[in-house]
Amino acid sequence: MATRCSPLVASRLDEFRLIRDLHRRFGRTGPSVLCGIGDDAAIIRPFPGHHLILTTDLLAEGVHFNLGTATFEDVGYKAAVANLSDIAAMGGIPHYVLVALALPASCTPVAVEQFYQGLMGACRSHGVQLVGGDTSSSLRGVFISLTMTGSVEPRRALTRDGAREGDLVYVTGTLGDSLAGLTLLAAGRTSRSAGGTRRSRLLLHGDRYRRALILRHLRPTPRLKEGRLLATHRLATAAIDVSDGLSGDLAHVCEQSNVGAEIEAAALPLSPACRAYAAAAGLDPVGIALRGGEDYELLFTVPPDKRTTLERRAREAGYRISRIGTIQPKQLGLRLKGRDGVSRRLRILSYRHFQGSRATQREAAWSH
Amino acid sequence: MATRCSPLVASRLDEFRLIRDLHRRFGRTGPSVLCGIGDDAAIIRPFPGHHLILTTDLLAEGVHFNLGTATFEDVGYKAAVANLSDIAAMGGIPHYVLVALALPASCTPVAVEQFYQGLMGACRSHGVQLVGGDTSSSLRGVFISLTMTGSVEPRRALTRDGAREGDLVYVTGTLGDSLAGLTLLAAGRTSRSAGGTRRSRLLLHGDRYRRALILRHLRPTPRLKEGRLLATHRLATAAIDVSDGLSGDLAHVCEQSNVGAEIEAAALPLSPACRAYAAAAGLDPVGIALRGGEDYELLFTVPPDKRTTLERRAREAGYRISRIGTIQPKQLGLRLKGRDGVSRRLRILSYRHFQGSRATQREAAWSH
Repeated sequence: MATRCSPLVASRLDEFRLIRDLHRRFGRTGPSVLCGIGDDAAIIRPFPGHHLILTTDLLAEGVHFNLGTATFEDVGYKAAVANLSDIAAMGGIPHYVLVALALPASCTPVAVEQFYQGLMGACRSHGVQLVGGDTSSSLRGVFISLTMTGSVEPRRALTRDGAREGDLVYVTGTLGDSLAGLTLLAAGRTSRSAGGTRRSRLLLHGDRYRRALILRHLRPTPRLKEGRLLATHRLATAAIDVSDGLSGDLAHVCEQSNVGAEIEAAALPLSPACRAYAAAAGLDPVGIALRGGEDYELLFTVPPDKRTTLERRAREAGYRISRIGTIQPKQLGLRLKGRDGVSRRLRILSYRHFQGSRATQREAAWSH
Repeated sequence: MATRCSPLVASRLDEFRLIRDLHRRFGRTGPSVLCGIGDDAAIIRPFPGHHLILTTDLLAEGVHFNLGTATFEDVGYKAAVANLSDIAAMGGIPHYVLVALALPASCTPVAVEQFYQGLMGACRSHGVQLVGGDTSSSLRGVFISLTMTGSVEPRRALTRDGAREGDLVYVTGTLGDSLAGLTLLAAGRTSRSAGGTRRSRLLLHGDRYRRALILRHLRPTPRLKEGRLLATHRLATAAIDVSDGLSGDLAHVCEQSNVGAEIEAAALPLSPACRAYAAAAGLDPVGIALRGGEDYELLFTVPPDKRTTLERRAREAGYRISRIGTIQPKQLGLRLKGRDGVSRRLRILSYRHFQGSRATQREAAWSH
């Protein structure tokens, strides 16, 4: 399923024109963009009465994605979702995107077009316009840096530092699907290249689940509507998106809010597909949910007196949310109450993107 | 003078703390930043009554910079200037910066600190605050992507598409110094590694000039004040910054304004240092001025009836500007009138960053 990078066949002048055309095609903008792609910078008419949200994300080939398990279109799509999800976690509305792209000589214009197809596919469904970019050659490897802007009403932004002792911890959607999907993709690649393994054969059962998990990994959903619900009704005291794994992202909230937390293993939302995958692979689904990254769900904290309102509004809107624990005093640290009722220290397992395994401390160090 | 990348000696936990401390130190912000580094995104109170400027630039090791001729501090400084210069070319005021950084395992925390020192050195002198970032590991090579925001009054932004037939073409400062400085740096490196060449020995004369040219290459000045003069007094019909070389950047303006232009070789502003370098190296200084990139001067067009006002205001403010040609009908294309009075077609020579030589068409294709 990977797009092969093959040397250019068209002349370089054709290639130049093609990329310029791509930018013209994908860079069409509305009346709020006074100057878009093609000048030194973009000029935007700001959203009146709102604060400006700014976020940037970097994706490096071999670190965050692997062109063996994702196409250029998938990579573009997920790059957009990573940024959209950051805006969602602030409770904001996304507006504009700028793309910086470094490409090795082996990349074809077709690959670049596929990247933009994926990127703008995700962006357009949330009304985000492409207003700027910089494309360069790279001696080795693809590097992508996206910057997205958004807006939020004054005093409505969801930050990481507002969680208070006694708050309830919630998460949207289900956890661990993306990691399961990635493992299936990687196993599929191994089985093709090495003639099949026991695990990958096991996973051929239930093709519908397999496809669902892979789709959750390659085409995740940014929880923008859920973020807006929390922000506009002031329901959450803190929020973060689950990109590095629940345990690591919960640790960020607790550190910045100066609190501890206890999560209940039995309360972690798992999809039937993820449960089936865990059963077939002989893995603990709770472990998958805790360390799985790139789910792009929202993890948020809610004061007990807002619980009823939150749960009613979420039900009315059709948003899946699960109460998974409570905020505790700082000295308690992060704890996990197992299905046996025993509370243990929660190990912080960071997610290593394209391999889905634990990150080294070095990688955890570089990500912030 | 290069910072050597050496393997880490400190433990990885120490490194984590060091980088977090760096962000705290360099990420201190004023009251307009409601949420800075450390959350999913930054929240900014926008500049009232102004339009928003957004620009992004990508720098790849081995393509845009070489750690053999620039330190990490130099690279940080120039990365900031590339973005500040884009804001200057729009006539805007710079405000905030976001940094995406991919670093190979060989980079030390000291190198990262030096990068931020350089970056924030350039940013702080123009009041720019660091509000966000993303740092990742890279399998090979350093990649830097900066996004900068700015503001400009409605209907005051300088774009590339407003040049009209008969307009006068101006440039700030002097041209070619950065290319001369880079060539000197590269020659110095060659002479150290290969025992000296005729050219590098020649250039040892006039150490003051040598230092001045190298400084112009490593620590260029973004022409923000000049850009503001042009924007606030509506003096220019089009503007661009000279980052890829005068000929290439003039071609961008002409293409987007749908006009041609004639430049006079004798009018190109050259510093005494650049003239001395050209004489010592046996090169034509006009050629250096035309193809030299990274001067970060502003190239702009002015209607003839605003010439007197512009030149008076620039003189009063102490800004060096030079009238170097005129905008012509499109069918004339780009022409260069030589010192012999003969007008010839101007060859578009794009600048290849760390080598200073002509870019291949492929690289020209990727840069926009």
